[in-house]
Parts: sequence; C-alpha cells; structure tokens
Amino acid sequence: MLMSDPHKRDRLHHFRHANFTTGELARARQLVDDHGKSLILPYDQFIEHDARHLDAASDAGNPHYIMELARDGGYTGVAVHYGIAARYWSRLEGAVPLIAKINGKTSIPPQDRAFSAFTASVEDAVRVGAVAVGYTMYYGSPRESEDLPQLAGVRRECERLGVPLVVWAYPRGEAIDRKGGRDTSYALESAARMAMEMGATIIKSNVPQAAGAEFLSNPEAPKYFRELERELLQTADDEAMQTRVDRVVAAAQGIPVLFSGGSEIDDDDLLYRAEVCVKAGCLGFIFGRNMWKRERGKALEITERLKTLLHEAE
Amino acid sequence: MLMSDPHKRDRLHHFRHANFTTGELARARQLVDDHGKSLILPYDQFIEHDARHLDAASDAGNPHYIMELARDGGYTGVAVHYGIAARYWSRLEGAVPLIAKINGKTSIPPQDRAFSAFTASVEDAVRVGAVAVGYTMYYGSPRESEDLPQLAGVRRECERLGVPLVVWAYPRGEAIDRKGGRDTSYALESAARMAMEMGATIIKSNVPQAAGAEFLSNPEAPKYFRELERELLQTADDEAMQTRVDRVVAAAQGIPVLFSGGSEIDDDDLLYRAEVCVKAGCLGFIFGRNMWKRERGKALEITERLKTLLHEAE
Amino acid sequence: MLMSDPHKRDRLHHFRHANFTTGELARARQLVDDHGKSLILPYDQFIEHDARHLDAASDAGNPHYIMELARDGGYTGVAVHYGIAARYWSRLEGAVPLIAKINGKTSIPPQDRAFSAFTASVEDAVRVGAVAVGYTMYYGSPRESEDLPQLAGVRRECERLGVPLVVWAYPRGEAIDRKGGRDTSYALESAARMAMEMGATIIKSNVPQAAGAEFLSNPEAPKYFRELERELLQTADDEAMQTRVDRVVAAAQGIPVLFSGGSEIDDDDLLYRAEVCVKAGCLGFIFGRNMWKRERGKALEITERLKTLLHEAE
Amino acid sequence: MLMSDPHKRDRLHHFRHANFTTGELARARQLVDDHGKSLILPYDQFIEHDARHLDAASDAGNPHYIMELARDGGYTGVAVHYGIAARYWSRLEGAVPLIAKINGKTSIPPQDRAFSAFTASVEDAVRVGAVAVGYTMYYGSPRESEDLPQLAGVRRECERLGVPLVVWAYPRGEAIDRKGGRDTSYALESAARMAMEMGATIIKSNVPQAAGAEFLSNPEAPKYFRELERELLQTADDEAMQTRVDRVVAAAQGIPVLFSGGSEIDDDDLLYRAEVCVKAGCLGFIFGRNMWKRERGKALEITERLKTLLHEAE
Amino acid sequence: MLMSDPHKRDRLHHFRHANFTTGELARARQLVDDHGKSLILPYDQFIEHDARHLDAASDAGNPHYIMELARDGGYTGVAVHYGIAARYWSRLEGAVPLIAKINGKTSIPPQDRAFSAFTASVEDAVRVGAVAVGYTMYYGSPRESEDLPQLAGVRRECERLGVPLVVWAYPRGEAIDRKGGRDTSYALESAARMAMEMGATIIKSNVPQAAGAEFLSNPEAPKYFRELERELLQTADDEAMQTRVDRVVAAAQGIPVLFSGGSEIDDDDLLYRAEVCVKAGCLGFIFGRNMWKRERGKALEITERLKTLLHEAE
Repeated sequence: MLMSDPHKRDRLHHFRHANFTTGELARARQLVDDHGKSLILPYDQFIEHDARHLDAASDAGNPHYIMELARDGGYTGVAVHYGIAARYWSRLEGAVPLIAKINGKTSIPPQDRAFSAFTASVEDAVRVGAVAVGYTMYYGSPRESEDLPQLAGVRRECERLGVPLVVWAYPRGEAIDRKGGRDTSYALESAARMAMEMGATIIKSNVPQAAGAEFLSNPEAPKYFRELERELLQTADDEAMQTRVDRVVAAAQGIPVLFSGGSEIDDDDLLYRAEVCVKAGCLGFIFGRNMWKRERGKALEITERLKTLLHEAE
Repeated sequence: MLMSDPHKRDRLHHFRHANFTTGELARARQLVDDHGKSLILPYDQFIEHDARHLDAASDAGNPHYIMELARDGGYTGVAVHYGIAARYWSRLEGAVPLIAKINGKTSIPPQDRAFSAFTASVEDAVRVGAVAVGYTMYYGSPRESEDLPQLAGVRRECERLGVPLVVWAYPRGEAIDRKGGRDTSYALESAARMAMEMGATIIKSNVPQAAGAEFLSNPEAPKYFRELERELLQTADDEAMQTRVDRVVAAAQGIPVLFSGGSEIDDDDLLYRAEVCVKAGCLGFIFGRNMWKRERGKALEITERLKTLLHEAE
Repeated sequence: MLMSDPHKRDRLHHFRHANFTTGELARARQLVDDHGKSLILPYDQFIEHDARHLDAASDAGNPHYIMELARDGGYTGVAVHYGIAARYWSRLEGAVPLIAKINGKTSIPPQDRAFSAFTASVEDAVRVGAVAVGYTMYYGSPRESEDLPQLAGVRRECERLGVPLVVWAYPRGEAIDRKGGRDTSYALESAARMAMEMGATIIKSNVPQAAGAEFLSNPEAPKYFRELERELLQTADDEAMQTRVDRVVAAAQGIPVLFSGGSEIDDDDLLYRAEVCVKAGCLGFIFGRNMWKRERGKALEITERLKTLLHEAE
Repeated sequence: MLMSDPHKRDRLHHFRHANFTTGELARARQLVDDHGKSLILPYDQFIEHDARHLDAASDAGNPHYIMELARDGGYTGVAVHYGIAARYWSRLEGAVPLIAKINGKTSIPPQDRAFSAFTASVEDAVRVGAVAVGYTMYYGSPRESEDLPQLAGVRRECERLGVPLVVWAYPRGEAIDRKGGRDTSYALESAARMAMEMGATIIKSNVPQAAGAEFLSNPEAPKYFRELERELLQTADDEAMQTRVDRVVAAAQGIPVLFSGGSEIDDDDLLYRAEVCVKAGCLGFIFGRNMWKRERGKALEITERLKTLLHEAE
Repeated sequence: MLMSDPHKRDRLHHFRHANFTTGELARARQLVDDHGKSLILPYDQFIEHDARHLDAASDAGNPHYIMELARDGGYTGVAVHYGIAARYWSRLEGAVPLIAKINGKTSIPPQDRAFSAFTASVEDAVRVGAVAVGYTMYYGSPRESEDLPQLAGVRRECERLGVPLVVWAYPRGEAIDRKGGRDTSYALESAARMAMEMGATIIKSNVPQAAGAEFLSNPEAPKYFRELERELLQTADDEAMQTRVDRVVAAAQGIPVLFSGGSEIDDDDLLYRAEVCVKAGCLGFIFGRNMWKRERGKALEITERLKTLLHEAE
C-alpha cells in the first residue's frame, strides 16, 4: 500500500498537523534530514546589522567560508539574500539547499516603524535554485498595512511556484516596545500566530524572555498576558522557560517552528536553550551568529551537538 | 410555472429586497439554512486581538477544534483568514461553507487611523474554496481614502467571480471616537448604510449601544443623532434597544444584516440581544468569541438556542 | 478527532483514490448527494446536435422546463452552456448546482477533424455561479494539437479558481473511425486515461460497445485490443459488458467516472446499463436525452429508479 | 578551499563539459545518485501509445503502483504528465524527484506530420513540485516550424525558473521515414545535436539501429551517412553498435545523454544495450516499458543490475 | 583546451572570486583593459551637484569635450545619464564603452531622506549602446524601503539582458549622519557589503576617512566600529588609510571595486590615494571632477600616471 513505509512518512512528520501542498512538501523534504529535522544556517545579518560582524573568531565576512561551513556541518539549508545566492552559494551547486531571503532592512534608520523591503522576488529565488523563500514580517509595526499585503503577495507567488514560505515572525516597532517589547511571550506568540494566519509553511521565532516587572502594570499590555507573566514569575526559571517556548510552538498550531539563536551566547546557554526548544517540539534551529562567529572548529563541534539533540527528540 | 415552489423561494427570502447577481445568490444559498438564516462562526480574532484568546474555557487556539465546532454545531459558515482556510478549514473539504476574510490589522499600533490591509485576495479566497469574501471597512477612519477604493476593488473582483461580499461595517478611528464612538447608533447606522452604498451583499454590524450623556452635548455629533439619543434615553431600555437594532437593519435597506456578538457576555445577555436582532429582521448571527471561548458543550448548547430563535422568526 | 466522522468522509468517498485540491473537493461536494453519488442533467445537445431535439415527448426545447426538471428530479447538477446558464439557470439561483460547459461544436461541418471550441471561459463559468466546468476533449482527433493545449489552459484556470474540471472524454475523428470507432473499448479506455493524464477532476465517458468483427483483423488497431475483443466475443454478453465498463472505470484509475446515456434507449436498456455502471463503481450518471426527451412524468419516474440504483451501490 | 571535496564534484561530473546555470545544477543534482548517474522511470506511454499497456505482467496501469516501483527501486526520477503528477506522484511528496513531461501526442492520428502539443506549462511543472521539465522534440517533422519555437519558449521558461530541460530528441515524420527512418544513426545523431543546439540540459535518445540495405542506395540520405552505414555493415556487430551509441553521445557534445529502452526486450538484450550505453559515457537510463511491464520482482531485480552497471562505469 | 590561455583569463581576473553570468562577463570584458583594469570617467555630476561645475579649468560643461577626453585618455568607460548618452556619447559610436547611469537626484531638496530616482531604464541603457548600467544606492537612508526594491528591480532587468550592474554604494541620510557620517569606515564598508548582497557586478565606493573623535563615544555607532576607529587612531596615518581601503575591498568579498575620487584634490593627494587603492586590489578608478575640472593637458597627464599605477599592480 502506498505511503505505508513508516520511514518515508517520518521524514515529513512535522508537516502532518495541517495541510500543505505537494510543491511545499516536495521541497520541504529537502530542508529536513532523515530524522525530519532542520538545521539552517542564516547569513543575512550583514544586511540587517551592518558590517560589524566582521569582528568574529572566524572568517565570518566571507560567504565562501559560510557556504563551506554549512556543507561541512551538514546543515539542511542556508538562508541568504540574492547577491550571496547568485555569487557564492551557486558554487555549491545545490549541495546545501537554499532558502532565499527576499526582504530586508538595515540597522541604520530608526526602527520604530520597521519595514522589511524586497531585495529580490520569489521568482528570482526559484530561478537561482532556492527550495524555499524567507520573508521577515514585522508584527505590530506601524507599517503593518504595507507589510501584510506584501507578505500576502509573496505567499501567493510561493503558491504559484509551489515553494515553501519561511516567515521570520518578528515583533517590531514603537507600539510593540510600548506594549512590553519584542521578546515577550505576548509579542512572540502573537507574531507566530500571525505568521500561521498569513499562510506560512514554516515559522521562524525567537525564544521568548520574561517581561520585566513593569510589564505587570503596563496598561497597554493585555490583561491575559500580564497574568501569564505574573504566574511565570512565580515559577522556577527552567519550567517558565519551557512554558514560554511550548506556548510559541502551540501558537503556531502545527505549522513547524524553527527557533533562532539571537545574539551570541556561550555554549552552555546555547545548548540549554536548544534543549528546551527540542522538548517543545520544534522543527529545528536557525542559528547564525552563534555558529559563524565562533571559530570554525568550535562551530562544527557545537553543530554536532545540536544535531544530536535534535535526533534524540524522536 | 417556474419558480412556483414556495419553499425554494423561501431559502433566499432575505435577498428579495434588492438586486443581486446569479453568482451572489447561488453562493449566498450555501450560507443560509433551510429557513434562509445564517449562523456564522468567525475566527479572525487572533489577528485582530493578538494571542490573548488562548485564555478560553475551550481549545480556542486550535483551528481544528474551531472547524469541528462549526461542523458539529451546524453553522452555515466559518469566517477565517487565508492561512487557516488553506491549512485547517481545507480538512473539512467544504463540509462547512467558507467566508474568507481577506483583510485585517493587529491590535498593536495605535487605532486612531485604523486601516485593514489585505491578507489575501478575492482570487485566493475563491481558489481555496470560499463561497464568499469578508472585508472590514473602517467607516470614518482618517484613512478612508485608502479604504474605500480598496473596498471598491474588492467589490469589483467579487463581481468578476460572482462571489458574495460580506462587509464588516465597523466605525473606527480618532474622528469617530471624537464624534461619539464606534458603538453609537450614529456610527453604526452610518457604517451599515455606507456598506450598502459600496455594494455589499451582506453587512456585518455590531449591536449599537446607548451613547453616553456627554454625547447629547457633543458639538461634533450631528444634531439629529443627539436628538435621537435624547429620545431613546427617555424610552424603556428594551424598546430603545429594539429601536437601535431596527434602525441598523433599516439603514441597510434590504441588504441582509448579520449581527456580531462582540466581546464575551453571559448567556442571558446573548440570547436577549439575539432575540432583538431576530425581531429586527436580521439574516442571522456571526458570533465568535461568545461561542469558541465557551466550553464546547455550552457552546453547542447555546448554538442550538440561537438556531431555535432564528427559526422561530419565520 | 477531525475527519473521524465516517459519514462526512463518505460523501466524498469517490474522491479518495487520488489527490484533489481543497477547492475541488469543497465544490465537488455540491455535485454529490448524501450518498456521495452524482446525477447530472446535461443539456448541451442543442449545440452539439442542432435543433432536432425539439422532437420530444416533453417541452425539451425550453430551458425553463429543463431547469425545473433538474430541480424536481433532485439532480445534483445540470450541465449547460453559458447562454442558458445566464438566462435560465440563473432563475434557479443555485438551487441545482451548475456545471458550465465551456466548449462545443455543431453537427454541421464534417466530424473527421473534430474540435470543440470555447463558448465561454472558466471565469465566465465561475462568475455566473458554476461549481464546476465541463470541457469536451476529442481524443485522437487530428486537431489534438489544438485541443490538448486548450484543455491544459482550462485545467490551469480551474486550478487558479479551485474549480472541478469535468472532462467529456470523447474519442472522435477520422483516425479513430479508421482504428475501430468511437465506441470501442480501445477508444473509450484510452480517452478516459487521457482525461486523467490531463488532470480531470471527473471524467464523463460513454458506455463502450463491442467492436465489429472487422476490428479483429483491422491492422490499424493495436494487437492488445484486438485480442481483448476476440476474448470478449467469446464471453456472455452481460459479462462482456460488465468487463467493458469495469475497464473504463479502471482506466480512470480512481478519478471518478460519470457515464452518459448516449442516444435514446428504452427504459429496460437504460436501467440495465445503469446497473452495470453502478457495479463498476461509477460516480453516477449524466443522462440527458434519455431524460428530457421522455415525457416529464416518465422522466421523473426513471430518475427515481436511477437514484435507487445508485444508492443501493453503497 | 571551496569545492575541493572531490566527491561533491563527482556528483555532477556529467555536467562539467559545458556551462549550466546554478538553478539547473542545483536541481540536476537531485536527478543523479551519489555516483552522478541517473535512472529515470518514464510513464508517459499511456498518452503516447493509448491504453494498450494495460497488457502487462504487472499492475502497469496504476500510477500508484508505478510511483511505488520508482521509490522502491531507488530511481532518481519519474517522468509523468501533469495529471499523474498532481493526482498520484503528489502522494510521494517528493520522495522520488519529478520530471514533468509537458507535451505529448496520441498514437491515433497519422504520424507523418508529428507534433507534440502542450499538456501543461513549465510553471505548472514547477508548482506541482517538479525538479525538471521534459519536452519531446520531433526532429525533422514537417511541423518543425511550430515545434522549434515552442521548444525555444519552453527553454526560456526553464531559464526563468532555473529548471533543467530534458529533451526527448526524437526523429519523426514522413520526411525522416523517407530518408532512412527514425532509428538510424543519421536521424538520432542529428536529433541529439539539435537538442543541444536548442539549449537542452539533458538529452534523451533512443539507441540507434543499423539502417537497412536500401539506405545505402537511398538518394535522399546524405552520402556521409550512407558511407558510415556501409562501413559499419563491415564491422563486427558489437563494435558497430558501440560506435553508433558513442556517436550519439559525441553528437551531444558534453550535454548529458539518457538512453531510453524503447519497446520491450528480454533481459539479456536490455543489459547488453545498457552496457554499451554506459561504455559510451551516458548519464544513465530512462527505461519505462522494460521496467513497469515486467512483473514487479523482476523489474526490481533488473533495476538493481542497471544500477550496478552504471556504478561500475566510474 | 578551451580557457587554457592564461592571458585571456587575466583580462577578467578581477571577476574570478565569485560567479558572474556570461552576459556580465562578456560585457565586463569591454570595461577593462589588457591588464584587466578599469579607468572610468564619470560625468553625472551636473545632475547631482547642479551647474556649479561650469567653473573649471577646462571646457567641463561640454559633453563633447568630455567624450573626447575619455577617448583620448584611453578610458575604459564613461558613466553618463541618458540624455548625454543619446545626444553626445553617441557621436563616439562606441569608441569608449558606456555605463549608463539610470538614477539620480539633485542637490536641491534636503539630503536627509536621500533617494535616487530613475532618469532612464535598463532597457534604455542597452538600446543606446551601454555595456553596463550604473545605479546609486543610498545605504541607510530612511527611504531604503523604496531604494532596495528599486535596486532589486534594476538587478533583475540587468540579468534579463545580461548587463553588468555597477552600484554606487553611498551611505546617506540623517541616520547615517547621526551614526558617524557617510565617509566613515563603518558606513562605507557596510554600504559596499550591501551592494554585494544586492547582486552588484561592480561596486563603486568612496575612500573612507577617519571618523572624528566624537565617534568614539557616539552611542549610536556600533561598538565594533568605535573600537576599530580607536585602534586606527593609534596607527600611523598611511597604515591606517591602507587598512581602511583594504577593508572596503574585503567587505565586497571579491566583487570588483572601483574607487571614486570625490571632490577635487591636488595631484599628489590623488596619486597617493590611488596607490593605496591599487595596493588594496581595486578594479580601478572612477575619477570625474579630478579629471575633467583639470585643464585638458594636465588631465591627460594624470590619466597616464593612473594607468601606470594600475598596470604596475599586477
């Protein structure tokens, strides 16, 4: 009987909780390993953060270095902008699957009205060889009325070409700051949910942090989340963190979630966070600076440890 | 003689007071039951209100749960955004008709210049299997000059594809606030009328509330409505409420009206309001939070009572 | 658990053997009854055959009469060209689902290079309220190089709008005639298969007939089918007929098949054929002339008998 | 140093003799195994040859069976038309890469002016999840002036979406027949070269056969090829065959060549031919009827032997 | 063996560190001399700076004069806007290759929200005879959300037509000013990197300057760059300057860099800067005012010295 082979089903087991199209699934298959898990190396930070990342223990500014790191580390994908895809990733000739990031913004202008503009199109991404498209949605930004239709258009194009859409679900802007900030459970759960409602195939989220004490009495934050924070404040740290991450995964309602690493942290922290995310049932990780700013040997070593963590999750 | 069967005519009796196209009628037929009444379960609140609705007596955050609730409750439609339609509603394979909501906004940025941006297109809605399209019009918003042409474009697309257009006729923005607020008869009657003038097939309205005492002397509110409020203040509550709801239905001038439930209220309140709306001659209800935030058994129970109310209206 | 209700699955049980999109399924649902069976009244013969059909025991030339017949007989669909859809079906306001036939040809020019040209577009069909589109493919016609791309374009439009595509899989043209004729198993199986390969949602086929003795020695007919005919010649008629019909259904490989009635036959013949088709596992019938050329009372009576047959199939 | 890993280079070693784009290479990578070889299961014969292939030792008419055979046999691709891709291949969710065949013709009308018409578009292919597109070019057909621009358009679309273009390089039509026939070295070398000149990524060719004695004196056949045939007639059969196959590969000038199996032959013949093709440096095989018309066990067994042959080639 | 001639490789040796398309390379070849170096005469300053440049030791305002200067000085290209290309450069009939500058802005409105608008299209450029297109990107401008998609569109058009894209990578706007200014290493490295990420074929950069002392304590400037500045302050001037220029070339990661001359400086300064740039491995120079505002004889003389410098670099 067709589809009866359990191993084949397993490879896409994170994509069984909601409907996906054939094109999405056939291509998502390339972004996961035999265990159905993803480990993505994102390298769009030189657009987002300026050239400061040249300050690294590795050859971090060199796209050739990054591509080799992805290949040698057995990553299931890299996420880069068009120029890097066309000029550097192309030399790998598809050896590591490509998520082409198609919008971005710099760190230079004020971030209070954050908006991520096109650096390429879905068709560009497909042409250059991408198996998926990456889009940054700024949840809650005052420019959401430009962002949402832009994302809807990207989603439509992705459907037209059968391409998975990975949404960076990022709360941003002055209103989010006023209501508790981009790293709160409130903001991240809502952003993950929004990405799902917009039709994301895969959702990239940051790991939520405890809101500060002032959040509890912030009249602009919804009562429900203030009570949640109050409750979590009284919970052991580990348990609270697990709850926070579990809730982001739950907010995505079966749309697979990749957790990002955020700014550089030490090995123990990284692995601890990763473990929490794995327990929460994430699809995998999309760790950039924490990989390519480390010295190459250390980066490969911690990559192996992440893969072990992911595979033990089964 | 053709068309002689009285029962068949009955099914679309709410659509006899104005002209509708064949496509609209053929599809509106699917949104009503044998009595010609609609009971719609809207589930777009996780975009409009953030993830706070996870706090519910039910599995409210789970779209699969919601779809099953709609099916088991015998709803004549669900109203959801594209992501939920494509990923979750799709599993019902049309068992409950779909109204695809194609615009939205979050609760995060200030609401004084409210504008609801596209989350999908009319064509997306049709492709995924929708029998109607939902659009939020913010009557009186400072951005109405963007909203009205956008709505006109949606109406045109709906006509091109023969699809009913359900307009969420919502007064919003700083000017409405200044002139009495979004829940006044003044605002809601005007919004319902506006939706009709823009070509809505069906109008969704909130139930109007008494304006506060300050409205009577608010120089920005029109004299006519200040006098109406003064008069209604001197009327028995029940009668005043009936008048308010009757007036919204009258403002729509034969374009069928669905009343929404708004924020959560208790059973008695809900049923009382519903009865008023039925008496006013509404097409039916579009109650979301008041259904899916209730515990499932209670939600199904009150659903039955609403259906009974609707059917007794004939 | 979602989808666990066996009854709901049953309604689309003919659509479980291959993949269909959500739009297709949500609309196919309207073309089947509670038993998952279809009974379609086609009325495109005044284009295909000229006005000869005015010669009927009923008011066959009157589209109003036909529409009422479909409604009163409880048909799950009518299949008509655009003019009739827009002018007459529209009065039923969707009471009987519409399959809009979008191509046709007359009986006037020679049929040796048969080609069925557009009488309307998929978008026309959707706008007027159709839940499905009908297309005639002339398998084996010398003009197949015009027909196949035209059909591919219709299929693409149907996908764009989520609409089921019903393919009239008709062998036609001088080459088919030379190779045994349009009613052979050879021709009809190949045509049904072709419709499947082109992406049909539902396939309309005629009931195959025994090829004449000359087929056995026709050097242009494939050896395989000559041997099949030889074998069936030596089989009891009933069994041979069952085999022929079974084979058409098998050729469609799980894409649901509707059998047409062809030219007028008597009641016994009609019911006998229908029974064979039901045993073969067809989706239902699409009987035109055999219905609307009969006197109305008789047509309704035989309609009931067909429905009984279909429902007993479960 | 990037690209220094010899194994990774090896995987695309058949694509080193000419320029290919990144999109082509990234996707061609999926069509080859770790040895850089391809084994493709084509299943477009029910369009090309009618339903005669139901006569098989296996469940050959069932696309689900074929897809499972491809998966279990470890094929590096299947080649099917759109309907099968969308309805059946889709259930494999990309487990076996897809070459979507986008043009075809039936065996019914006369073949003297052969032309293969669109059954789908390049964009359809990509959307449904294909990694490559298949196109049949009829070299020498009187309708070449329709065929060549159509192919040029397909090639352009393939470039726009970065998709490899596999050209079925088939001599056909009355003129080819008059000049020696479709299976001559003359015809097949010329067709392979034509495919290369039109921009094919991969060329599918049949294995050339000795032209008959009448070819030597056929005034319409070019002198060069008549002399070649004369010479090969005086050569040992094995050597002549090797020369013929070598020449097809040479005609493609570094564009990778897949050899097809043609009509069913016995195991020894098949393996003998395959060995000749491997020696000639082919990319691999695209054997259909010789696989899926065999009983499943035998098909899998001979599949293994083909893979062994291919891998010994390195 | 193809490509084995070392001299031919040398001519494009600056284009060996990343992937470029054939169209780009075939045309880039015309922008370099036998040593693979570029010397471009830009003449777009009458748009950017108003007519102030009429004040020159030469006939600077006369495009005919400029074109002749380029030809007589042996420049490998001129960069001008469409009007000059069509009216004046055209008389050279391709004697000096053309880079058509297709966007610009005047010096008149405030520069805090700098945006460079189209003065022509890529297709205009190709039609008039350009071998490359020039585009000004304002890194960090508050209008980057308009600039980046515009640049992405230009890049896409350049690819469609196989044309090299020369990006003027210019930091600009109020935010850049606040964070240290347009001539800092911080700004120029980040801008060069951005141009690479956007897909530039060649990057034009200014020579970075030491940030002022206040930069060291500017909280808006990234810590990494403040530390870099601190370090360079303690380094000998020559070495610091070499480091700065080296870093811009490194930021471009193998995408060839042209350095501009900026405002007029004296001969020694000019040659000193040029030498530093050559040592850093630049592709060449794009010096405008420093050429055409000099008296013709002097301009030609210093041109020769620049060429000598460039050629000694090998």
